[in-house]
Amino acid sequence: MSLANRSLVTIDDLSNEEIEAVFSLADEMSEAMDKQSRVCQGKLMASLFFEPSTRTRLSFEAAIHRLGGNVISAVDVGATSLAKGESIADMAKVVGSYADIIVIRHPWEGAAKVVADYAGVPVINAGDGSHEHPTQTLCDLYTLKKERKTIKGLRIALCGDLKYGRTIHSLIYALARFNVARIYFCPGRGLEMPSHVLRKLTQEYGGTLYEHPVAKPLALGQRVDAIYVTPSDSHQLALMPDIEINIDISEGALYVTRLQKERVKDTNQGVVSTEGYPVISADLLKGKEFKHTIVMHPLPRLDELACEIDADSRSMYFKQAARGVPIRMALIALLLGAKKMDISKPEAPAAQKIAYPVYKRDSGIRCSNPRCVSIQETETKYIKPEFKIVDLEPLTLRCIYCEHEAKPQYIASSDWHQGLLASKKYHSADSHLTRKIKPQNLIIFDSESEAQARGFKPSSYATRKGE
Amino acid sequence: MSLANRSLVTIDDLSNEEIEAVFSLADEMSEAMDKQSRVCQGKLMASLFFEPSTRTRLSFEAAIHRLGGNVISAVDVGATSLAKGESIADMAKVVGSYADIIVIRHPWEGAAKVVADYAGVPVINAGDGSHEHPTQTLCDLYTLKKERKTIKGLRIALCGDLKYGRTIHSLIYALARFNVARIYFCPGRGLEMPSHVLRKLTQEYGGTLYEHPVAKPLALGQRVDAIYVTPSDSHQLALMPDIEINIDISEGALYVTRLQKERVKDTNQGVVSTEGYPVISADLLKGKEFKHTIVMHPLPRLDELACEIDADSRSMYFKQAARGVPIRMALIALLLGAKKMDISKPEAPAAQKIAYPVYKRDSGIRCSNPRCVSIQETETKYIKPEFKIVDLEPLTLRCIYCEHEAKPQYIASSDWHQGLLASKKYHSADSHLTRKIKPQNLIIFDSESEAQARGFKPSSYATRKGE
Amino acid sequence: MSLANRSLVTIDDLSNEEIEAVFSLADEMSEAMDKQSRVCQGKLMASLFFEPSTRTRLSFEAAIHRLGGNVISAVDVGATSLAKGESIADMAKVVGSYADIIVIRHPWEGAAKVVADYAGVPVINAGDGSHEHPTQTLCDLYTLKKERKTIKGLRIALCGDLKYGRTIHSLIYALARFNVARIYFCPGRGLEMPSHVLRKLTQEYGGTLYEHPVAKPLALGQRVDAIYVTPSDSHQLALMPDIEINIDISEGALYVTRLQKERVKDTNQGVVSTEGYPVISADLLKGKEFKHTIVMHPLPRLDELACEIDADSRSMYFKQAARGVPIRMALIALLLGAKKMDISKPEAPAAQKIAYPVYKRDSGIRCSNPRCVSIQETETKYIKPEFKIVDLEPLTLRCIYCEHEAKPQYIASSDWHQGLLASKKYHSADSHLTRKIKPQNLIIFDSESEAQARGFKPSSYATRKGE
Repeated sequence: MSLANRSLVTIDDLSNEEIEAVFSLADEMSEAMDKQSRVCQGKLMASLFFEPSTRTRLSFEAAIHRLGGNVISAVDVGATSLAKGESIADMAKVVGSYADIIVIRHPWEGAAKVVADYAGVPVINAGDGSHEHPTQTLCDLYTLKKERKTIKGLRIALCGDLKYGRTIHSLIYALARFNVARIYFCPGRGLEMPSHVLRKLTQEYGGTLYEHPVAKPLALGQRVDAIYVTPSDSHQLALMPDIEINIDISEGALYVTRLQKERVKDTNQGVVSTEGYPVISADLLKGKEFKHTIVMHPLPRLDELACEIDADSRSMYFKQAARGVPIRMALIALLLGAKKMDISKPEAPAAQKIAYPVYKRDSGIRCSNPRCVSIQETETKYIKPEFKIVDLEPLTLRCIYCEHEAKPQYIASSDWHQGLLASKKYHSADSHLTRKIKPQNLIIFDSESEAQARGFKPSSYATRKGE
Repeated sequence: MSLANRSLVTIDDLSNEEIEAVFSLADEMSEAMDKQSRVCQGKLMASLFFEPSTRTRLSFEAAIHRLGGNVISAVDVGATSLAKGESIADMAKVVGSYADIIVIRHPWEGAAKVVADYAGVPVINAGDGSHEHPTQTLCDLYTLKKERKTIKGLRIALCGDLKYGRTIHSLIYALARFNVARIYFCPGRGLEMPSHVLRKLTQEYGGTLYEHPVAKPLALGQRVDAIYVTPSDSHQLALMPDIEINIDISEGALYVTRLQKERVKDTNQGVVSTEGYPVISADLLKGKEFKHTIVMHPLPRLDELACEIDADSRSMYFKQAARGVPIRMALIALLLGAKKMDISKPEAPAAQKIAYPVYKRDSGIRCSNPRCVSIQETETKYIKPEFKIVDLEPLTLRCIYCEHEAKPQYIASSDWHQGLLASKKYHSADSHLTRKIKPQNLIIFDSESEAQARGFKPSSYATRKGE
Repeated sequence: MSLANRSLVTIDDLSNEEIEAVFSLADEMSEAMDKQSRVCQGKLMASLFFEPSTRTRLSFEAAIHRLGGNVISAVDVGATSLAKGESIADMAKVVGSYADIIVIRHPWEGAAKVVADYAGVPVINAGDGSHEHPTQTLCDLYTLKKERKTIKGLRIALCGDLKYGRTIHSLIYALARFNVARIYFCPGRGLEMPSHVLRKLTQEYGGTLYEHPVAKPLALGQRVDAIYVTPSDSHQLALMPDIEINIDISEGALYVTRLQKERVKDTNQGVVSTEGYPVISADLLKGKEFKHTIVMHPLPRLDELACEIDADSRSMYFKQAARGVPIRMALIALLLGAKKMDISKPEAPAAQKIAYPVYKRDSGIRCSNPRCVSIQETETKYIKPEFKIVDLEPLTLRCIYCEHEAKPQYIASSDWHQGLLASKKYHSADSHLTRKIKPQNLIIFDSESEAQARGFKPSSYATRKGE
């Protein structure tokens, strides 16, 4: 399957084999950077950044220039029409008629999907809120591959902000797909991996979470192949780490370990900084288990990565940043169809792709994530709420835009009440009826009052269990 | 006459034949977009945007890139020297020594003219306050031409903000020049076409305004070829439409129709939205008179154009935006002299060009438009006030920068008082003396006190009629 | 010595011969601007402007485009990672891995040096606070050279803001090196040349300052070859000029003249504007001594340069700005190694390069300039304070980053107290011990309390003279 004319919104948009193809082309290009200056000659990239960024934007713009193409860019939301209340979809249509490819960063989660849906040209997600940032993931995986030859079987510790860090979410799915052996979670306090990410890991990538107490963060006592550190944004500096979750994906099993809170009360020692965020220091790297560990970071860093290790041969973060250019060159060239690669046939797929039933109606439940693109005032005229039904007990929906989950409490069937007003009844979502109503007939409500406002009356199954 | 080395400040800077030449080249270029990448190789455009814009700026920058040229741009006024109090003229001189062509958007009306006067290279006005936006007009006319083959004889409704919308002002002059048959005005309340625009239409394009009541906005009951909708900016959302002016330019006659206010009190029905701004909806377009009507809009839109009609084959606004690139490519290539077109000889000119007498003095009247470039503190060292005397009864001046009109009340003659202090008298502008004083001797005052401050004394004709 | 792969942080980074080579190449390029479009093909410049600028940035970006290269730019500090607290050194490393050359403007003095130290690619200082702006100096010298054939022996008046104007500081060192005959200082009140600049002039360029009263500013009574005017920023408009310092560098002698304050009390006449800033007017230029004087200004101007002289053949400021493009083209091409020039062997060096001893310690004195890059919170993890010891009586240090001077009051020796706590003593910097302690053993303190905090006790020489 060719990559030409496709978009990259989440890392799942690329198969493992397609990712490998991007890596091969990046290798080829970085070996002869000077010879790429005609690959995308005459091609125009629109670079639309509705959030601050230096390195990601400059890296994309450097990439298209190295390929001989050009850029039109809108950097500051204040300087654009969006300030006038225009919808993202309208903007995507117009800019898609100017440029050959669009790179978009936006604070709303799911915004890149909307742009891809309407632009008519390939779209690359350069970060949408705390949702995904798939090209960063490509750079991360590429660095792992370059330094370790293969990703399969590696043992990787993820440190810091695992909750809001979009780079982490894209990365963890990709690591799972590439059969990494074990992932250790070392989050700051209150910065644990969100439940919808864990669900996806266990449900779609077939693992088991395993939880066990450890003495202190990163006191793993086992060989680690890579440490991936995330930036501690200033507003998070006051947070204290108190949780460690280890995920083990060896032989299809995932384990989660929860660090006992009482054990990390004294956080002013060891690898834990006074600001309460895991810090990678020269001292930490003296540990035996880190002898061959590479240290990765998406940059920019604050204090979580000491300058003293910059010269250490295990430090990879500046190499990682530099590799952003050839990786993005390869990706852009492939999406524009300016380069073609043989994509090898997939072996047995690592990740189980589940065809969840879809819930899509004009009325009823809306995504409850306040940063989701689907509920923004300017977007609702275009976008209808749409969910995957990822579980029935309890009823759980995943927004197709931001991938946040909702557990709605009331349902009805569009089949049962046709013509008959008396049969227009709503039920509790935890009743047995949830399983009985066919997905295409399901109506899901945000609340009891919404159900009533739409003319439904409580059935005998309308009371929630335990009430 | 060649377009090379000329500027486009107002749509009047191009003859009908030159506009047709731009269209022909745009046709040629859009048929072979890939083959234009050497037309302006080595050429540099300066893109100076002192007001927010996405689509216009990106469209211009896409155009020069598609032609193989490059861009230097200053987007945000806060990030430029202008914040330091530099004059536009100084900036124009300097940037004109860096780049081969300048594209300027500025909030001050007449700013583009100043840049064109000082830059020494071709200048394109990308919008100066609510004055003009001539390349938008070219895109509009081009879309009309492409969809209707000819502009002559069309019947066009202009809806929404006819007062501040600079796109409308440029467009209406151009429509008149291309012998459109009839223009219907459907403004929002308080958003009627300004009097200086109406004066220009009647006086220079030789028509008559015709006014008649209609039942409700857009209830025209006659075939309409195109509806042109303007954006309702947020600050205008509270306005209610209560006026409809129809202009008819068939056989040189113009008609204006004023909708009776009492007839639109209930504005919550029909095409009038609750926000009180004309809305083009699927419902409206079901009307028989709109069967073949194309719908145009300069974008970005808010609520005045329903998303539901996006897929309608009559909706042209996204095509209109897309055509901005080839139109601007053609224009840039011609102004840079990189392409040459045969300009056909004009038939009988559609519009009557009137050589009004000019009023230009260091002292005396200044433009009263607070956004006019000619009265800004940083500019007055360069720019002298300059007006066309467009009428004598009452005395009416048109600023050559912003084209706003003034009706000054006091005059004097530089001829009558030479040497003799006693003869230094000022008169009322509505006295018969206004016609007697030769234009080159005329002195015009903002006020009586100004006349007195300059040493003039009231003559026996200094009292205004009716006082 | 080749210019390839070098940086330009201060004008001293280039020898006179290298500057002449840049001028020759600029001549060559400006004679055939159209033929330069392949010189830097495929090369990428990063343009990082952390302060407002139009002309400098556009001039650099125009230069690289004229050479066939491309640009990635970050213009507004608010839109970049720096807002997230990233260090300049980190940013330099990352951007240095994207681009082939970096142009940086930053409000912190010494910032360009830090970028040059870490980027790994050539760096050009486009202005760092009020420190230096060396490419402006190249444009200034180039204009002098073009208009006067040689710089040697010229008599030049520097007017206006000589204190904060970074363009002036770079220029004056360069003028001294090129053996200008005489420099007249005509500063606004409170805007005199700073003492560290005067020290460098006298100490490193071997001249003597000569001071004498003159009747009023610019009443020089002697032939002047060029007047260089600096912009009066709005916050300085209230300042009154009361000082004139003339420097004469004929035969190695420098003279400074101080204008008596009482003589300029009535500043509302002559060349002094009511705003109290020297103004170059048509009236002034009528003076006999200005008959062949060229008038220069770095632009943008406010009121210090009257529009009325724009058309005067002596006015050079717009030519000066225009020449910025070929000068920057030549410089960029040389630093990138895309062009090579024969650099002639230096004659007897005009300026005496002094190898001052260096003071560099983790503890002890820090630079006291609040805008110095070396003391900024984000930078101190990378940068250690470092000074040149430029004088011993009194002890005077020059910061290697911002070149500001400090006169610390307390010292100690790292040699004298080894092992013996009782010998850990500090002394007054004006005692005879300052000369006796070897530079490599010197410890310098900001204050007595700092010395005590580090475990030092006052010696019998710890009392300052006169206390």
